Amino acid sequence: MSKSKDQSNNEFSLINRYFKKLTAQQDVVVGIGDDAAILKPTEGHQLALATDSLVASVHFPNEANAYQVATRSLCVNLSDMAAMGATPKWFTLALTLPKPLATTDWLQDFSQGLAEVAKQYNVALVGGDTTAGPLTISITVAGELPAGEALCRGGAQADDSIYVSGTLGDGAASLLALTQNSEMISERLLQRFYSPQPQIALGVCLRDFATACIDISDGLVADLGHICKASGLGAAIKSDLLPIHSELKDNHRNQVLEWALTGGDDYQLCFTIPESKQAAFEAWVQQANIPVTKIGNMTQLQHNQDAVLLDDQALSANFGGYTHFK
Amino acid sequence: MSKSKDQSNNEFSLINRYFKKLTAQQDVVVGIGDDAAILKPTEGHQLALATDSLVASVHFPNEANAYQVATRSLCVNLSDMAAMGATPKWFTLALTLPKPLATTDWLQDFSQGLAEVAKQYNVALVGGDTTAGPLTISITVAGELPAGEALCRGGAQADDSIYVSGTLGDGAASLLALTQNSEMISERLLQRFYSPQPQIALGVCLRDFATACIDISDGLVADLGHICKASGLGAAIKSDLLPIHSELKDNHRNQVLEWALTGGDDYQLCFTIPESKQAAFEAWVQQANIPVTKIGNMTQLQHNQDAVLLDDQALSANFGGYTHFK
Repeated sequence: MSKSKDQSNNEFSLINRYFKKLTAQQDVVVGIGDDAAILKPTEGHQLALATDSLVASVHFPNEANAYQVATRSLCVNLSDMAAMGATPKWFTLALTLPKPLATTDWLQDFSQGLAEVAKQYNVALVGGDTTAGPLTISITVAGELPAGEALCRGGAQADDSIYVSGTLGDGAASLLALTQNSEMISERLLQRFYSPQPQIALGVCLRDFATACIDISDGLVADLGHICKASGLGAAIKSDLLPIHSELKDNHRNQVLEWALTGGDDYQLCFTIPESKQAAFEAWVQQANIPVTKIGNMTQLQHNQDAVLLDDQALSANFGGYTHFK
Repeated sequence: MSKSKDQSNNEFSLINRYFKKLTAQQDVVVGIGDDAAILKPTEGHQLALATDSLVASVHFPNEANAYQVATRSLCVNLSDMAAMGATPKWFTLALTLPKPLATTDWLQDFSQGLAEVAKQYNVALVGGDTTAGPLTISITVAGELPAGEALCRGGAQADDSIYVSGTLGDGAASLLALTQNSEMISERLLQRFYSPQPQIALGVCLRDFATACIDISDGLVADLGHICKASGLGAAIKSDLLPIHSELKDNHRNQVLEWALTGGDDYQLCFTIPESKQAAFEAWVQQANIPVTKIGNMTQLQHNQDAVLLDDQALSANFGGYTHFK
């Protein structure tokens, strides 16, 4: 029952060894190997801190390989930084690992996956811990943003336009493909599931334009609902405006709308922009080549009205199955 | 397999509800309930960040109650801040909870334990996540300290005196009592196991005096060995100087030395102080009423010599069973 730094750090040292090859140690005064990491904050900035756990067979299939587990875990966690408009800088890892996976091969592949995402987004692994047990990856990401510029959920105003990044429904489509016939999944959906690209650049840009922002992990209706609730408003969105990839439209015509609205796991941003800033925002995303789509607008919340209306109707009227969102 | 903010946050909301009653939300711009917490760093300070996981039946007995699990988890994590000389400010919690424990009673007691420790040390819970599975508590603590003043392991100099705080061997003694006859354990040992007091005030003071510091989680020999290795030095300690509580001396005469040296789980600080600063340091701890004991001194490391010598002998010569530390 006693803890052993020496024993528990064996696996962690391995992760760190592979990891150090690839990641930049930006603003890291003391890294892994002391009681805590010491990090150099940027003057005039605030700290963004978020923790998220991914569990095998809950957040990814048991069959996922080590590389895939690592990339999905870090991408999903970085998405929370994007949603706040923060630039991620450092992260720690609490890894719970079943004994059969504690092999050099598994850890090497896991480290490689972490390291490649970390390099892409310029974040440094600065600490962590490994324990034995069912595969669980808890990551804490620390990021920074200029003081007072965080994108919160509660800032939306009535008549603000509602935008989403990328395409919706891919999370649900990839999940179905992985659970039903994982060998037939397209490369695009496989990437969308295991490497959902956190929208960091967009999040940083939105500090200048957006009044509210959230990342879509539970599905558009649920997450837009969080913006509605925090802002004390309603939202009206149009089904024919929802950005859905042609792959889904072609192969899953009857399911795409449900997936786009409630599927979750998309890790796109949903955000609101006042009319006065839309032209400048749209010019920026065009030159930055970041796909975003206007899908509706925020509304005054009427008494007894559902927070999110689809095509002017309460969602439950269109989709009986969706009552659990209310 | 899809993640649900709504579902997974039910337990977490409960924790947070109880928690908010007690803890100060110091420098928290945005707390729990958005995609990430937004925190206000202190100007001119650096950030200390550490993650540690505690697993049922590994780091505490399965029989531990929710309150005990919470206090031990947070105390142990805060100890890493003490070891760096940092003042802890914020923490996040990744809680993996077996379904039978996800009751209001358990969560209320757990929250109460977290909240009381958090209040005592003035740290705020700012985020987290709950998942289902074997009981595991992963905490990430973020603290601060003036730039350049972190207490690292590698700064010790030859002839520096070696000190420890409090008493040694209590962790091992409490572990034995808990596993053998948990009803007979003394209140003092129960407290030492479930509420090991992180030496925050001492750590902060040591920024002015110490050349190296570590917290004793694996046992004095192993942890002092980390200072030796990082500093490129040896250490010579005296068995009759080791601070051991009379309770242990009276009841466990034949085991106390082994426990003090290798038992672990003590969460006291071990640190080195140059001769020029000893008088001022000892005056400070006396007025602050913090018990510390000088147990030996750092030495030049001789070829083929064990890093830590006890009473001028290599530890293996005294204790055959200790060869696993080499």
